[in-house]
Amino acid sequence: MKVGVYGATGYGGMQLITLLLRHPEVSLEFISSNSHSGIPLSDLYTKLTGRFSQILIDSEEAKPRLKALDLIFLALPHGVSMQYVKEILEVNPDLKIIDLSGDFRIQDIGLYEKWYGFDHVLKEKVSSFVYGLPELYRETIKKAQFIANPGCFPTAMILPLYPLMDQGVIESRVIVDAKTGVSGAGRKAKEQFLFSEVQDNTYAYNTGGHRHSPEVVEIIKDTTGASMDFLFSPHIVPSSRGIYASIYTTLKEGVSPDRIREIYDNYYAGEAFVEVTSFIPSTKDVNRSNRVFIHPTYDEASRTLVIFSAIDNLMKGASSQAIQNMNLMYGFDETLGIDTDYYYL
Amino acid sequence: MKVGVYGATGYGGMQLITLLLRHPEVSLEFISSNSHSGIPLSDLYTKLTGRFSQILIDSEEAKPRLKALDLIFLALPHGVSMQYVKEILEVNPDLKIIDLSGDFRIQDIGLYEKWYGFDHVLKEKVSSFVYGLPELYRETIKKAQFIANPGCFPTAMILPLYPLMDQGVIESRVIVDAKTGVSGAGRKAKEQFLFSEVQDNTYAYNTGGHRHSPEVVEIIKDTTGASMDFLFSPHIVPSSRGIYASIYTTLKEGVSPDRIREIYDNYYAGEAFVEVTSFIPSTKDVNRSNRVFIHPTYDEASRTLVIFSAIDNLMKGASSQAIQNMNLMYGFDETLGIDTDYYYL
Amino acid sequence: MKVGVYGATGYGGMQLITLLLRHPEVSLEFISSNSHSGIPLSDLYTKLTGRFSQILIDSEEAKPRLKALDLIFLALPHGVSMQYVKEILEVNPDLKIIDLSGDFRIQDIGLYEKWYGFDHVLKEKVSSFVYGLPELYRETIKKAQFIANPGCFPTAMILPLYPLMDQGVIESRVIVDAKTGVSGAGRKAKEQFLFSEVQDNTYAYNTGGHRHSPEVVEIIKDTTGASMDFLFSPHIVPSSRGIYASIYTTLKEGVSPDRIREIYDNYYAGEAFVEVTSFIPSTKDVNRSNRVFIHPTYDEASRTLVIFSAIDNLMKGASSQAIQNMNLMYGFDETLGIDTDYYYL
Amino acid sequence: MKVGVYGATGYGGMQLITLLLRHPEVSLEFISSNSHSGIPLSDLYTKLTGRFSQILIDSEEAKPRLKALDLIFLALPHGVSMQYVKEILEVNPDLKIIDLSGDFRIQDIGLYEKWYGFDHVLKEKVSSFVYGLPELYRETIKKAQFIANPGCFPTAMILPLYPLMDQGVIESRVIVDAKTGVSGAGRKAKEQFLFSEVQDNTYAYNTGGHRHSPEVVEIIKDTTGASMDFLFSPHIVPSSRGIYASIYTTLKEGVSPDRIREIYDNYYAGEAFVEVTSFIPSTKDVNRSNRVFIHPTYDEASRTLVIFSAIDNLMKGASSQAIQNMNLMYGFDETLGIDTDYYYL
Repeated sequence: MKVGVYGATGYGGMQLITLLLRHPEVSLEFISSNSHSGIPLSDLYTKLTGRFSQILIDSEEAKPRLKALDLIFLALPHGVSMQYVKEILEVNPDLKIIDLSGDFRIQDIGLYEKWYGFDHVLKEKVSSFVYGLPELYRETIKKAQFIANPGCFPTAMILPLYPLMDQGVIESRVIVDAKTGVSGAGRKAKEQFLFSEVQDNTYAYNTGGHRHSPEVVEIIKDTTGASMDFLFSPHIVPSSRGIYASIYTTLKEGVSPDRIREIYDNYYAGEAFVEVTSFIPSTKDVNRSNRVFIHPTYDEASRTLVIFSAIDNLMKGASSQAIQNMNLMYGFDETLGIDTDYYYL
Repeated sequence: MKVGVYGATGYGGMQLITLLLRHPEVSLEFISSNSHSGIPLSDLYTKLTGRFSQILIDSEEAKPRLKALDLIFLALPHGVSMQYVKEILEVNPDLKIIDLSGDFRIQDIGLYEKWYGFDHVLKEKVSSFVYGLPELYRETIKKAQFIANPGCFPTAMILPLYPLMDQGVIESRVIVDAKTGVSGAGRKAKEQFLFSEVQDNTYAYNTGGHRHSPEVVEIIKDTTGASMDFLFSPHIVPSSRGIYASIYTTLKEGVSPDRIREIYDNYYAGEAFVEVTSFIPSTKDVNRSNRVFIHPTYDEASRTLVIFSAIDNLMKGASSQAIQNMNLMYGFDETLGIDTDYYYL
Repeated sequence: MKVGVYGATGYGGMQLITLLLRHPEVSLEFISSNSHSGIPLSDLYTKLTGRFSQILIDSEEAKPRLKALDLIFLALPHGVSMQYVKEILEVNPDLKIIDLSGDFRIQDIGLYEKWYGFDHVLKEKVSSFVYGLPELYRETIKKAQFIANPGCFPTAMILPLYPLMDQGVIESRVIVDAKTGVSGAGRKAKEQFLFSEVQDNTYAYNTGGHRHSPEVVEIIKDTTGASMDFLFSPHIVPSSRGIYASIYTTLKEGVSPDRIREIYDNYYAGEAFVEVTSFIPSTKDVNRSNRVFIHPTYDEASRTLVIFSAIDNLMKGASSQAIQNMNLMYGFDETLGIDTDYYYL
Repeated sequence: MKVGVYGATGYGGMQLITLLLRHPEVSLEFISSNSHSGIPLSDLYTKLTGRFSQILIDSEEAKPRLKALDLIFLALPHGVSMQYVKEILEVNPDLKIIDLSGDFRIQDIGLYEKWYGFDHVLKEKVSSFVYGLPELYRETIKKAQFIANPGCFPTAMILPLYPLMDQGVIESRVIVDAKTGVSGAGRKAKEQFLFSEVQDNTYAYNTGGHRHSPEVVEIIKDTTGASMDFLFSPHIVPSSRGIYASIYTTLKEGVSPDRIREIYDNYYAGEAFVEVTSFIPSTKDVNRSNRVFIHPTYDEASRTLVIFSAIDNLMKGASSQAIQNMNLMYGFDETLGIDTDYYYL
C-alpha cells in the first residue's frame, strides 16, 4: 500500500517513518515538511544516512501526489493538522487519514476549543473520526476512513481504567499522577528541555489542567457510559522515553480485589499489546515497544486501588499505535511491523 | 566542639562529613567504619584527596575516644545503629547523639519492629530520642541529648502536611505519590541501581507499604493530635538526588484555598529553610541545599488540594538536617555551615 | 535452523537472544545459565513477559540437547567460555560455535595468557577459530565451524584502520582515544557502575594496557602484514550504549587526504553495515544498530589524520555482529534479522 | 569590596553570582542583563527564591553605578564583552575588570579576529589584560587592573602542559583529546543540547580547529618560550559539568618517567587547587570545585606520555577561577569563598 507522511521532523514523526520504512506492506511515497523541504530527512536525522535518501517535499509538491496514495499520516502540531486535513480532502476526498495530533480526538468541539485554544476549522468532520485505540474501538477502526490517534497520556490512562469503569467496580473519583520523559515535548529547542535543565530534575506541570484530561473523560463516557471525577497530574522526570501512570481510585463496596484481576483478564487476555503483570512494571519494560504493562494493587489500610501503567510515549503513545490502526484498517496482522521489542537497553 | 562520625562510607555519611569539615565550629575527631578501617576516607571518595587525610578507624579504636567527644553522628544502617548507641552509652552515657537511621524515629516499638523487621535492643531509650525536625520540634531539640534524624520521605511529607493537619482544614484521607532519585539507596552495589538499569526508567516500589508511612502518621499525631488515613506510594526516577512529593488531599467544607496559603505563611514565614513558593517547584530548586520548597494548588473541578514539595534527600532529607539539629543543640546560628546553595547545576 | 545459547543473563546475551527470537530462520531451542537455571528469562528481563516463556536450563540439562543443534552461541565470561567449548565439543564435535568471549580471538596463546590471566585449556583449537569480522574475513567465515566474535573496541578500531594499513598510507604510530558507555561492563552489580557514580562522570581506565590492544595489532598484522606501534586509551563516559573511537595517526609523505576517502570507498562501498560519512558521526547515529560510521579528517597544521568511528557496543560490538556471522555461515542474507535501525532515541 | 556583574543569565554567570553571594568580602551591588532587565534573577533561576531578590538592571541603569564599584565581572558572550569594556572604561577608567569572555585572552589580535570572527574594538587595551591563570601569572595578577579569565579547555590543558614544556622534557608534538559536558554551551535553547539529543550520545566537534587552540599555544609560548605543534580535538559527552583532557605527547630522549612527577611536585606542591594524583582522576573528583586533578602515565611500549587532567568547566574553567583572581588582586586568602568541595554527588 502507498502511504505519505506530513510533518516528519519531530521525534514522533521520525519514529513513525522508521517503522513505516521496515513495514513489509508499506511503500512510503513521500514525506512532506514545509519547514525542511528540499533536503533529505537524513540531514535532520543523520542516523538514516545511507538508509533513506528521500528528499522532504513541501505541501504544494505533496498535493498532486495525494491522489496516488492509499493513506496519509499526519504528524503535525495541534491546530495545524486540521488545516492540512481540510486541504487534503479537497484534493482527495477518499483518502484514508491517520492524524496523530489532538485536532480530531475530542468530539465536543467546545471542549476542544477551550483546551486547545483554536477555532476548529473542520467541525463537520470531527464526528467522522474514530478514536484510534484498537483495544476499545477495533471494529470501528477496521471500517474507518479517518482515525484520530490517541494522545500519549490518555493511552496510558484509558487502557487501565476502561475495564473497571465498564464493569462499574470503582468509584468515579480518580486521581492520576503521571510521569513522562521529555521526548514527548518534541525536538524543538526549548531552554527547559536542555540536558543540563532536565538532568536530576523532577517536577509537576500544568497543574491548572491538561488537555489530555477531557480526552480521557470523553472516551470513558463514550465507551462505558460512566462519568468520572477526574484529576490528572502530569510530571516531568529526567528521562527521554516513557510514560508511567499511577492511578489512585477506590473499590466500590463489596468488590473484592481479586475481581479486578479477573476483569482485566477477561478484557485483555487476547490483546497482543496489553500485559497485565504480576509485578510492578517499569517504563524500561515497554521502552521502544508498542506494549502497555498494567498492574493493579490494593491497599487495604486506606481502601485504595492503585493501578500502575507504563507505555512508550513515542510508540504505543503515538507512532506504533498509528501503525496498529493502519494494520487494522487494511486487514493486516495487527502486530505487523510493530512487534519490535528488540532492546532491553 | 568535638564530634565523631560512625559509618562514613555511604552517600549520606559522605555528605555529612564534607559538611562537617567546613563547619566553622566543628572539629571532626574521627570517623569510624568497621568495613573500611585502616584506610583514608579519600581512598573511597577520591574527591577528598589532598583535603582530608584521616584514616578510618574501627569501632574498637573509636571506643576510648568517645569520652573526649561532645557529639557523635551515626550514619549507619537501620538495625545496626541501635547496637552502636548501646555500646556508645556504656562508654560515655552523657554523649550527645544524632542518629540518622530509623532506629529511634518511631516511638511505638511494635510498629518499629513490624516495619523494620528487627527486635529493638534499646527499647528503654526510644522515648529519650527527639524527632529531629526543627520546624516542628525546635525547642525540644535545643535541650535534647538524643536526636532521631527524620527519614528523607517523611521530611518531604510532614513539612507540607503539618500546618494543614494542625489547623484541621483538610480531610484525614491523604495520598502521597513520591518520586526519589537513587542516591537514597546508598552506595552499595545492587544490580537494580546500575546506570544502565536506572537510565530512562521510572517505576513504583514498596506498594505493600513503606516504613516511612508509620513515621509520618505518628509524627502528625504527636504534633497535631490528628489521625490520618494515609497512602504513601514511592517511585524511583532516573535521577541521583532529589525527592518530589505530590500530595493529594481534600479541603474540608467551607475552607477556601486562600486560607491554605495563609496558614503556610503563619507557620513558615520565619523559617530559614522552608519556602512556600508561588510557582511549581522542582527538585533542581533544592538540589544540594537544606531547603524545602512547598507549593499548594487547588483543583476546583475535582475539589482536590494538591501540594508539591521538593527536598534534597541527602541534605534536608539526611545530613544537613542533622547539622541543623546540632546547630540548635549548641546554640549556633541554625543555618551555620549548611547555607550552601552554591549550585544550580 | 536450531540454535542454543549459553550464558544469557548479561546485557550482551540478552541482546543476542532478543535478536534471535525475531530472526526468521532461527529456532531458539534452549538458553543455558548455571547461575539462573530453573526460572524463565523473563524473570530476569521482565520486558520479555508474555513474549518468551522458556525456562533457563543448566549446562547438565543442556548437554544431551547439543546433538540436535546446528549452532551454539556462547555469551559467557572470558576464561569460562573455553571450558564450555571443550565440554560441548566432547558431546558434539561437529557443532558450529560462535563464541562472544575473548578466549579464541588471539592466536598467540602466550599473549592471550598474559592479557587474560588464564591458562588456555584448549590451545589446540585456537587456530581453528576464525575472527568474526565479516568485512575482513567474510569468505573464511562462510566456511568456518568456529567463530571468535570480535571485541567491541577492536571492531570500532580495526574497521577504520584496516584499509589504511592495508594500503600503507599511514605511519605505524597510532593512538586511539576511545570512549565507551557502561553497558559493556555487563549487568553485574559493581559500585563503580551505580547510576550515582556514572552520572556526570568521565574518566580513563586501564592505562597500563587493555586486552583489546593485542587483538587489534594481531588482526591488522594478519590481514595486512603491517606492524603497528599502537596506543589504546579507553575512557568511560556517562552513557549506557555506544563506543566512540578517535584515532590519531600521521599520513605518510606524499599521500593526499583525498586518497583516504578513495581508499575507504574502495574497501567499503559494498558493505551493508559500514558508512563512511561526510559529517562527524556520533554514537547516537549507530545506537541499537549493527552499523559502523567512519569519518576521516585531516589537520594540516599538525599533519595529523584523525579518524572518528562509532558503533553500538552491544550490537556491532557483540550480538548483532555474531548474527551477521551466523547469516554468512548459513548463506542467509547478511543483513537478515539485524537490519533493525528503528530508533533515533 | 563592591562588585558588579554584567551578563548573569548563563550557567557561568549564575555560578559566579552564587559564589559571590557567599563570599565574605564581597558586596554584590548590581547585576546587569539587557535581555532580562526588570525582573529578579530568581525568576530565571528559581533556586534563588527567598535568597536573592535583586532586580536585574540594564546597562544604562548600570552605567552611573560603575563609579561606586571596586571591580566588575563580565560574563558576556565573546564579541559583546569588548563593547562593554569600552563603555565601562569611559565611565570609570580606574575600575578593575575580570572578563570571562575570550575577547582579551589572545594578545595576537590577528589570531583573535581569525578565530572569533570579530573585528576587535579595543585593540589598544588587549596588552593591558593579564591572563588570569593564577598558577602561572600569580604575581602579575596581584597587580593587574584587567584580567582575561582563561577558557575552560585551556585551563585543563595549560596546567598539565606548562611545567613539562617549561622544563623542556617533552617533544613539541602534543595531541589533546578532550571531553566536555554540555553546560559549557550555555543556557541557550539549541536543538543539539536537548536532553533527548545528549543522552547516550558522544561525538567530536570543531575538527577544523577550536579557538581554544591558539590560546593554549600563545600562553605556553609566553610562559616558557617554547613552541608547540598542537592538535586539540574536543568531544561532547552526555554530561552537564566536567572537562576531561587526555594529553598525548612523547618524552624526550633520556628523560625518565619519574622525572615528570618530580617536575609536577616542584611546580605544584604549594598550589591549593592543583592535585597531582597517584590514581587516574575523573571529572567527578572535581565537579563543583575549583580544583584541577592531574595524572601522568607513561606507556613504554609506545614511548608515549599520557597525561589526564580534570576540571569543572563552570568553576576552575570559569567562575571560581575568576574569584581566585579577585582574591589575588585584593590580597585575600586565595581560597576564600571558593573552597567549596561539599559534594561528591
